[in-house]
Amino acid sequence: MKTEIITIGDEILIGQIVDTNSAWIAEQLNAAGFTVMRKLSVGDTREAILDALNGALASSDAVILTGGLGPTKDDITKTTLAERFGGRMVRDEATYIRNERILTARGIDYNDLNKGQAMVPDTAVVLQNLHGTAPGMWFETEGKVVVSLPGVPFEMKELMSAEVLPRLLDRFGRHRIIHRTAITFGLAESVLAATIAPWEEALPPTLHLAYLPSPSQVRLRLSAYDVGGDEAQEIERQFHRLEELIPDYFIGYGDATVFSAAARLLISHGATLAIAESCTGGALSAAFTAMPGASEYLMGSVVSYSNDVKSRVLRVSDHDLKHHGAVSETVACQMAEGVRRLCRTDYALATTGIAGPTGGSEEKPVGTVWIALATPDGVSARRFVFGQLRAQNIERATANAANMLRIALLHADALDI
Amino acid sequence: MKTEIITIGDEILIGQIVDTNSAWIAEQLNAAGFTVMRKLSVGDTREAILDALNGALASSDAVILTGGLGPTKDDITKTTLAERFGGRMVRDEATYIRNERILTARGIDYNDLNKGQAMVPDTAVVLQNLHGTAPGMWFETEGKVVVSLPGVPFEMKELMSAEVLPRLLDRFGRHRIIHRTAITFGLAESVLAATIAPWEEALPPTLHLAYLPSPSQVRLRLSAYDVGGDEAQEIERQFHRLEELIPDYFIGYGDATVFSAAARLLISHGATLAIAESCTGGALSAAFTAMPGASEYLMGSVVSYSNDVKSRVLRVSDHDLKHHGAVSETVACQMAEGVRRLCRTDYALATTGIAGPTGGSEEKPVGTVWIALATPDGVSARRFVFGQLRAQNIERATANAANMLRIALLHADALDI
Repeated sequence: MKTEIITIGDEILIGQIVDTNSAWIAEQLNAAGFTVMRKLSVGDTREAILDALNGALASSDAVILTGGLGPTKDDITKTTLAERFGGRMVRDEATYIRNERILTARGIDYNDLNKGQAMVPDTAVVLQNLHGTAPGMWFETEGKVVVSLPGVPFEMKELMSAEVLPRLLDRFGRHRIIHRTAITFGLAESVLAATIAPWEEALPPTLHLAYLPSPSQVRLRLSAYDVGGDEAQEIERQFHRLEELIPDYFIGYGDATVFSAAARLLISHGATLAIAESCTGGALSAAFTAMPGASEYLMGSVVSYSNDVKSRVLRVSDHDLKHHGAVSETVACQMAEGVRRLCRTDYALATTGIAGPTGGSEEKPVGTVWIALATPDGVSARRFVFGQLRAQNIERATANAANMLRIALLHADALDI
Repeated sequence: MKTEIITIGDEILIGQIVDTNSAWIAEQLNAAGFTVMRKLSVGDTREAILDALNGALASSDAVILTGGLGPTKDDITKTTLAERFGGRMVRDEATYIRNERILTARGIDYNDLNKGQAMVPDTAVVLQNLHGTAPGMWFETEGKVVVSLPGVPFEMKELMSAEVLPRLLDRFGRHRIIHRTAITFGLAESVLAATIAPWEEALPPTLHLAYLPSPSQVRLRLSAYDVGGDEAQEIERQFHRLEELIPDYFIGYGDATVFSAAARLLISHGATLAIAESCTGGALSAAFTAMPGASEYLMGSVVSYSNDVKSRVLRVSDHDLKHHGAVSETVACQMAEGVRRLCRTDYALATTGIAGPTGGSEEKPVGTVWIALATPDGVSARRFVFGQLRAQNIERATANAANMLRIALLHADALDI
């Protein structure tokens, strides 16, 4: 079944709000096995709404609209739908009574504008909005379905879950699409593609592979129609083969990140972590502490932005700071060892680099970052050269530091077994 | 001038990512005085892209496409555009050489897939992507413009700002719309609206005011058509009046945040800062160090996640930790004083709280956060109770800590003068 999502509102077209509704609806429709062909946003004008609706009905079986159902003059979705689908405006008593109760409780006058929200075309099935004043509407025309929902996210979500999805499944449901997404880190998209080409070519034709690159990781999504066979297990099997092919680059599934992967390994080892940050300025610690349960392994961090704090708190040698500079292998290693000692942990990470936009030199250009890892067995550091942009350099240094820890723990794991 | 935005990628249609690109582009186009008629998202298929493009060209003067420019087989925007606009595929030497340099610096093999990114139809003007490997392309056809940009947000933004907007203004610009946005912090939208109602009512009719609320701040945007008068100065004057009305809540303009406002005050005072973080876990330091120039005032931070680090590194009293708990006024104050002493700074901030999802109690529910500020004149702390969500609690604690520092510096400033 083909679907299209149309979000209505001038505020979307001027970029005043990011349209998160359509992403959520798309996810729900996909999970239910419906294909989303297009997502369209249009303004609050009769012509734009009619154009969008007619275009969508030409190619899709179901169209979900959100927005434009408010009580004020600029919300014209309902009158436009009444015009398109015909019918007389009638009062929906359940909505009328509920809205009176809701508004009176909030101390808002139940005036004519508000009363108008309970008026719906009698060609629509009313979807009761228990959390707001604008009812949803379900139209059928020439074997196709058009659903109109309020734009307020939680009202829309409740109506989608309670009313729209069950009705769509009832009406159109056949084969669900099964998705699973594996996360890789450390190989650029092109290199990953070349590395896993034999695996990709050997995939059964029922599976569809997609590459989803982002600056720090590449996600690989396998999809299949659930035709009642072992599609889910086949996806599982193929991802296991992939993991065996690129163990050091395979992070996990779904929402996994280098941080969650490293955290999981720390917890399974019962190991503790400390962090010393210069160029990442707290972002590395924040990435770990953003996840619940960080207190299980993260004892503490020092953001040693000044050389004074590097030497006094982390015991980095003043001579080495002067001789090699703060952005150097030896200072990175001393920072990691220093914070490991200070916080009495098993592992420690340290970052020192030139995030930019200024501070670069010919020898150490902006984007140069040393990352050190101290373990119970010693300390080592690796040099990276990222790009020109400060935010990206911090993000990449942060992810690569977590990745160094992850790989070390992965191999410590192999040895333990 | 009418424009349409088309974002390309299966990941958008299955709801795997929220399309933030199109909101940003819409905002930029509007600020430049161009009307966005529609935003459309389609999948990575030739038919969908051609349909979308032809539909957009039928009603708009300029079409901005993002996405589908990666090196792998599922990225087909470029070949589809070459088919639509004709022309021979030729190598763009600047892109070829830059990509070789970028990839080699990252230790990535410059293979055929990567080399293919430098191939462009000779019907396009190449927009040099200095921050990534996929070049932008500018096509003209029958007096209309089609621009193809990479989907990676920061690459897209750089190309929009540096290349696309200046070229569009040059080609289509007439009456620009002048926007200016003031940032407020600390008043909920409804309270802010009530507080500034007299100011709002006295605005001249040529100015349009919009409220743009977000969880931690409310932005106020004034817009006017640039008809060659003193529109820009009038906006300036009105915002000055606003600043006088709500000095403690007025953060600044444009991209200003509580962090940039506090940083600016630190620098103008020649004052230094240290930070001790428990529940914010590095996020407060990261918010300051995300801005260039943080080394001018930030000496260092300690993320004291464990009580051991709180007592040994920050010299928080073991007795108070046991007696009052880590989430308490006295521990927050001792953390701030401890890190101020350790890093030898003028000011210090400290956070300690229960970010969640677990760890709450009846007396100290999830969301309870103590924030302390140590100054040359002493130390004090304030208790906040935020919500249930970890990420939000960290974000709010971070912003409110910076705001406490900002207000203190603002009043120190007033005394100095």
